[in-house]
Amino acid sequence: MKSDFFADRLLQAIADKQAPICVGIDPIIAQFPETLRARIDRRDVAGSVDALFEFCQQALKVVAPHVPAVKFQSAYFEQFAGEGVNAYFSLIQEARSLGLIVIGDVKRGDIGSTAEAYAAAHLDEGHLWLDGDEEQTPDAITVNPFCGLDTIEPFVTMARQQRKGLFVLVRTSNPGSALLQDAILADGRTWSQMLAGELNKLATQAELIGQSGYSGLGAVVGATQPQAMIELRQLLPQSIFLLPGYGAQGATAQMTRAAFVDGQGALVSASRSILFAHLSKQYAGESDWRVCVEKAVLAMKQDLRQVLNG
Amino acid sequence: MKSDFFADRLLQAIADKQAPICVGIDPIIAQFPETLRARIDRRDVAGSVDALFEFCQQALKVVAPHVPAVKFQSAYFEQFAGEGVNAYFSLIQEARSLGLIVIGDVKRGDIGSTAEAYAAAHLDEGHLWLDGDEEQTPDAITVNPFCGLDTIEPFVTMARQQRKGLFVLVRTSNPGSALLQDAILADGRTWSQMLAGELNKLATQAELIGQSGYSGLGAVVGATQPQAMIELRQLLPQSIFLLPGYGAQGATAQMTRAAFVDGQGALVSASRSILFAHLSKQYAGESDWRVCVEKAVLAMKQDLRQVLNG
Repeated sequence: MKSDFFADRLLQAIADKQAPICVGIDPIIAQFPETLRARIDRRDVAGSVDALFEFCQQALKVVAPHVPAVKFQSAYFEQFAGEGVNAYFSLIQEARSLGLIVIGDVKRGDIGSTAEAYAAAHLDEGHLWLDGDEEQTPDAITVNPFCGLDTIEPFVTMARQQRKGLFVLVRTSNPGSALLQDAILADGRTWSQMLAGELNKLATQAELIGQSGYSGLGAVVGATQPQAMIELRQLLPQSIFLLPGYGAQGATAQMTRAAFVDGQGALVSASRSILFAHLSKQYAGESDWRVCVEKAVLAMKQDLRQVLNG
Repeated sequence: MKSDFFADRLLQAIADKQAPICVGIDPIIAQFPETLRARIDRRDVAGSVDALFEFCQQALKVVAPHVPAVKFQSAYFEQFAGEGVNAYFSLIQEARSLGLIVIGDVKRGDIGSTAEAYAAAHLDEGHLWLDGDEEQTPDAITVNPFCGLDTIEPFVTMARQQRKGLFVLVRTSNPGSALLQDAILADGRTWSQMLAGELNKLATQAELIGQSGYSGLGAVVGATQPQAMIELRQLLPQSIFLLPGYGAQGATAQMTRAAFVDGQGALVSASRSILFAHLSKQYAGESDWRVCVEKAVLAMKQDLRQVLNG
């Protein structure tokens, strides 16, 4: 029997594709292939959003046969104001129709009724002002826990109701993350370890746990942080880890290893190294950017397989 | 000579209106006056967004003569997807044309090039895909520093270039905020004190400091946290404090006192207690919700004046 819990669906999709990979859809215009970039024109919002849409749509078609999941970076759509936001929700529908699990990388977080509004805006299928045939909310979103654990609860409630997922920021991949997230507490733990311990109480509530034993409440842990990852894995044993930082940010397959338990429980995310592979020396001879995307995905798949089985 | 630095403009506007008050525009549909709520219909997005727009527009007209600033809560607009987001940018233009300083409460935060995209989407006047006559970006936005101080820098760069402002979350007003933000570090400081100390290095760079001596980089400190406020005021002496939590969340004028230095340097924000005053027993006899809004603003103004002068 197929489980509709988010964690089960994601793990099943990873097993089906034999790839713990999430392709980040970060449509950075400056890195677009020339033919598409030429169509971006500030005086023509509709035409520009069409080009944005087409770039993402084509990338989705290339990666869909090879990977279980994609992650849309909201910021690049928000740059095009309302038209960009509508393109974001349309592309989510597009991705889901291609069989992909979709993560909305929105990093929202706020207090009380505002958190409820964000959860509704970004996760609710029924409540939202979208045409379900053409626009959908993602299967999971990223959430920023700065305001406190009470502010995660409205997102948890929505995720439970809709069998959706959350990836809560715990330890990010950027160089300056250590100062705040690795601050040493009076009890000797790092701040992010304390956060992980508290999040685990939310993650392990029965209503979030699928047949796989994993929770719908996952964690974002930068693949650039292998040491932190070992400890966080122990503190959040039932959470799926979303690992950004592979590729352009310098993390290797080897560095992701500690996030996996028996080859399971983590999803490695790469964005620019896949989407803009046409800019890499490695694929300099290739004229079609979509072929570069496919080659980069297959190379990442091979790279991760060697390490996970090795 | 009028200074175009954000801090100077804000402090001048506060002085002109004799009110250190920001009205939060949190259009919570369930609390709308009946005539407007009746126009919200899931099958009619355009009609619903019209009602949302009208509610906010009318509230702006009522409060504009009395207060220097308004703060739009992005979440409630995002609930209406792209159409809601466009209404948000249109209302910002509307508010600015009424002489109000506008804060976009978006609480965005992310790493590297994504932070740049968020800064462009939410602060840039020139780069954004908006029609400047009808849609504008706010004078300042709220920023979430979870990812680290390096991730604040793209926002600072944009604020400097455009003479705009930032309010970085330091200590929020919700009940669960203490666990993470007041975590005690090995050196005895709270985590938010450490954050404040680091932010002060960014806030005091010369290019952000106006003629008033205040910085374009301000801090969000919950008015519900008077004890934390005293210490944070010392750690961020040149930052304007944005104080949410007055009214519906229970903070009083007295509790905001420690944020002010010589009656200056802070902006007290109230949302629901103003916008939905028609639901309060106090104004039960009044049939026009706009009259309730005006009475509530004037009462808040009087309340703060007593305390600040007292």
